[in-house]
Amino acid sequence: MNMKAFQDSYPDELSHCYGCGSNNEYGHRLKSYWDGDFTIAHFNPEPWHTAIPGYVYGGLIASLIDCHATGSAAAAAFRAEEREMDSDPPIRFVTASLKVDYLAPTPLGVELELCGELLEVGKRKVIVAVLVKAGGKICARGRVVAVIMPESMVSLE
Amino acid sequence: MNMKAFQDSYPDELSHCYGCGSNNEYGHRLKSYWDGDFTIAHFNPEPWHTAIPGYVYGGLIASLIDCHATGSAAAAAFRAEEREMDSDPPIRFVTASLKVDYLAPTPLGVELELCGELLEVGKRKVIVAVLVKAGGKICARGRVVAVIMPESMVSLE
Repeated sequence: MNMKAFQDSYPDELSHCYGCGSNNEYGHRLKSYWDGDFTIAHFNPEPWHTAIPGYVYGGLIASLIDCHATGSAAAAAFRAEEREMDSDPPIRFVTASLKVDYLAPTPLGVELELCGELLEVGKRKVIVAVLVKAGGKICARGRVVAVIMPESMVSLE
Repeated sequence: MNMKAFQDSYPDELSHCYGCGSNNEYGHRLKSYWDGDFTIAHFNPEPWHTAIPGYVYGGLIASLIDCHATGSAAAAAFRAEEREMDSDPPIRFVTASLKVDYLAPTPLGVELELCGELLEVGKRKVIVAVLVKAGGKICARGRVVAVIMPESMVSLE
């Protein structure tokens, strides 16, 4: 497994994401990595990330899937170009659509594992499937259509 | 518009949700209301709820859609039984699936409005469509399949 997280290769000005930006001091700071041809991330929800007592809030699960998938999309795009993720020009994806199926209640208090699979890797569009496990049990399944970030989004700064 | 929020009618032990529970001191505390046959909620994202600078984090949008939809599902179930939401027995829905299409970047710094439409109201399953607007412009579209909360989830407390 490559020890540098995808998100740690994002340019500084694109590292403010609440879900995974290392410059967001209030956020989740999710870290995603290659694991062979798959991508992997781990996350420990806080006690207040609750839906009903004892279970993880579904919105957090959706958020983690979203960030893991867009990170995986960027990593796959760099890999397709045989470039390191911190090389120029940067490639960054945003979410066009996110689908989450909640398959089983997700217990709070155990580490979550997200496993991403690249279903389709295009120049402008990447489709990622993500499984979320708690204690080895699959609790949610996500599918994200990620598209290359519009230049207009960055120029607004 | 009825002035009591759906979420303020949830039983105390089911009011810990990070997205909408009034007992969750760290959460979003979303409040949803009837607006004729539609449901409505407003939310002001915090400055740190950012995707990239200037735009709202997609995971937050997914979370708000989720909570507005499950609240709308409960409200619709009570309305179908011609009961007030704080009458017994309580009815509470959880999310089976959540789909969000991000139609346009959502600017940070303006109030978001969520409008819910009940597409299907069954005893055990309710389908809700949600539009998210920022400054009057539709930025995201959600579709949530909500199912009645399994009794096993509550007994875990």
